[in-house]
Amino acid sequence: MNALPYDRDRFDACADEIIANTRELAGLGWTPATSSNFSMRLDDRHAVITVSGRDKGKLGRDDLMVVDFDGQPVATAHRPSAETLLHTQLYRRFAEIGCVLHTHSLTQTIASRLYGGAGHVRFEDYELIKAFRGQKTHATQMDVPVLPNNQHMPTLAAQVDVLLDDGPLWGYLINGHGLYAWGADMAEARRHLEAFEFLLACELETRKLHR
Amino acid sequence: MNALPYDRDRFDACADEIIANTRELAGLGWTPATSSNFSMRLDDRHAVITVSGRDKGKLGRDDLMVVDFDGQPVATAHRPSAETLLHTQLYRRFAEIGCVLHTHSLTQTIASRLYGGAGHVRFEDYELIKAFRGQKTHATQMDVPVLPNNQHMPTLAAQVDVLLDDGPLWGYLINGHGLYAWGADMAEARRHLEAFEFLLACELETRKLHR
Amino acid sequence: MNALPYDRDRFDACADEIIANTRELAGLGWTPATSSNFSMRLDDRHAVITVSGRDKGKLGRDDLMVVDFDGQPVATAHRPSAETLLHTQLYRRFAEIGCVLHTHSLTQTIASRLYGGAGHVRFEDYELIKAFRGQKTHATQMDVPVLPNNQHMPTLAAQVDVLLDDGPLWGYLINGHGLYAWGADMAEARRHLEAFEFLLACELETRKLHR
Amino acid sequence: MNALPYDRDRFDACADEIIANTRELAGLGWTPATSSNFSMRLDDRHAVITVSGRDKGKLGRDDLMVVDFDGQPVATAHRPSAETLLHTQLYRRFAEIGCVLHTHSLTQTIASRLYGGAGHVRFEDYELIKAFRGQKTHATQMDVPVLPNNQHMPTLAAQVDVLLDDGPLWGYLINGHGLYAWGADMAEARRHLEAFEFLLACELETRKLHR
Repeated sequence: MNALPYDRDRFDACADEIIANTRELAGLGWTPATSSNFSMRLDDRHAVITVSGRDKGKLGRDDLMVVDFDGQPVATAHRPSAETLLHTQLYRRFAEIGCVLHTHSLTQTIASRLYGGAGHVRFEDYELIKAFRGQKTHATQMDVPVLPNNQHMPTLAAQVDVLLDDGPLWGYLINGHGLYAWGADMAEARRHLEAFEFLLACELETRKLHR
Repeated sequence: MNALPYDRDRFDACADEIIANTRELAGLGWTPATSSNFSMRLDDRHAVITVSGRDKGKLGRDDLMVVDFDGQPVATAHRPSAETLLHTQLYRRFAEIGCVLHTHSLTQTIASRLYGGAGHVRFEDYELIKAFRGQKTHATQMDVPVLPNNQHMPTLAAQVDVLLDDGPLWGYLINGHGLYAWGADMAEARRHLEAFEFLLACELETRKLHR
Repeated sequence: MNALPYDRDRFDACADEIIANTRELAGLGWTPATSSNFSMRLDDRHAVITVSGRDKGKLGRDDLMVVDFDGQPVATAHRPSAETLLHTQLYRRFAEIGCVLHTHSLTQTIASRLYGGAGHVRFEDYELIKAFRGQKTHATQMDVPVLPNNQHMPTLAAQVDVLLDDGPLWGYLINGHGLYAWGADMAEARRHLEAFEFLLACELETRKLHR
Repeated sequence: MNALPYDRDRFDACADEIIANTRELAGLGWTPATSSNFSMRLDDRHAVITVSGRDKGKLGRDDLMVVDFDGQPVATAHRPSAETLLHTQLYRRFAEIGCVLHTHSLTQTIASRLYGGAGHVRFEDYELIKAFRGQKTHATQMDVPVLPNNQHMPTLAAQVDVLLDDGPLWGYLINGHGLYAWGADMAEARRHLEAFEFLLACELETRKLHR
């Protein structure tokens, strides 16, 4: 009988928290067509992440799996999401990151294409900027980077690493694809995710009104 | 006592799967005013399809019926949807198709009218293109045909047959009407349906922003 | 002990049907700020209608009352909606009308203001035109009248009577206000209501795309 | 054992009413990223208000606290929302105000920025104007003030006091931030809140159509 290299109770707790939150995000329409993936730090070497291709509105514990911080499956025959490396690079680099959420809302996809050329979306003078950890006032600017899409994950991960060198960052867009957001735990990652979605929607709607 | 020419247990299983999925699609507002119809392959000669004119948010087993692949009712007094032939032509031609979903969302209707003149909507460089079976990269183009509307189903069916000659296809729009999408089973047909809806919405919203 | 001048069981049945349907319409956001009112024919002299000012998402039987076809309360101290007369004029004039639904969706309000000058909204070449009783093809035109708003109900009712002289009609808009839709029973009235809402939304969204 | 300086049963009743209503508002997406705050008058010296930073879709009684009308916590170690003073200034000044609701919907945020320069949004000829206490006709104008945003609450409160000098007011916007709405009790405050949201959305959508 093989012992698991991680704590099974902690796995179950993470899985249940991912399931509950993912169901709510699916209900908002942010995970169309089985897209999107979600993870939580399990311990200092492992993360719990969604199995590829499952309907995010109907996850069970069997739709979650464990990977190490190189993105390799641990003690499972499941295939992790192709984008696992974009989750685990964050856990490996920052001990204080406990949760990574990747969604594909309409707003995220459209904004990523519209601002892909500029390379970032700028938020300015929004009260909701204060939803991001460390922000104390609305009277500031905040840029969300937009990376070119790529099916080769190590290339994307290398570009993300460069962004992370520049200072505190709570998320980025990939062109034509969606948003990554993270935080210390599920509650903070969701707060950041909701704030990004809200502010992106404000920018898009305002463009429709100002032209 | 007449024996049914199909397996009753298989009928019940198909009916329950259609009921559960249709309720979710109705909840999204994609089946306004009792429109839309849904089917699954029952066996190599029969399909289960929604009875015409029922509220798609409140289907029971009695709102489903069996038709043969010519679209004729089998062992029932119910009237099938007028568009039954557009379902059964797919089952007859492709043994690997197991489910056909026809919806009338706002986005589908508006896009069908806007692109009806061009005859197709083009998707390009979207990550969600990978939701369609056989697509491995976002870096491609994919066209959704738009057919003129017609109350004569054999005419519509003949036009669809020509489209199907051109190679793999997972759906088409009818002008002023809605979308047909299909797949090997309910899960794949819904994934395709959700991807079409999402990508059509991206195209429409982007037009509002770029003008 | 006074006998009620109507059948109490029929009242209860109507009330329950109105409650269930109104809750769904409130869930769609079509009854903002306790607006909107709903009725069903009780018998050849009475209708059941919502009491004025109640939250339409949380109705109970006590939020419904009986009025005669002049719009006067029957055997109740409740005050009916100010617009009761617009319901009862339909029941009095057409024995085949069994249900009248008046909602205030964003789409209805915006369309009523945009097309108030023209006096009607025109639908053309929509498959969903077939949702209206008597319509057999999409290849037709259908006009929804838009009346000027007025706080004097007899004036509004007189204008509606003129419209009804012109032939079959399943609904009209009031400028800056909302939509009235009706049918033989609740199912048909809701089908008509949903079709109006859908087609008005198509027209508004298409205007945003075509300019 | 210290006696509480307020009635615990009244606290529980207020808390439960806030919890139920806040859950519904969160479900509409009006409280993104743990933003927004909600209060009710407890007695002539105290109000019940949401604790800062909690997820408004999942409040329990422990997420509510008591403050006096200077906005200071009473018999609790919880920290009230930074904006508590904007609630309590209303309770202190007007004995007839029983409930204050502050939300951050997309529509409110976008409208506040678009009309911030003008200093107000004007509603005219909408039936829903009658949803505000004291309004008897649609044939009128009604202005919603827009204040500049400020992290210093006494400054904002002083500006609100000037607005309140001008006569009956049921709400105001803060630029880039959101809406405050109030009323005699929860039902009236929600009716006013829903009417503001609806009318702001009408104004924004109409601008998209008229340009």
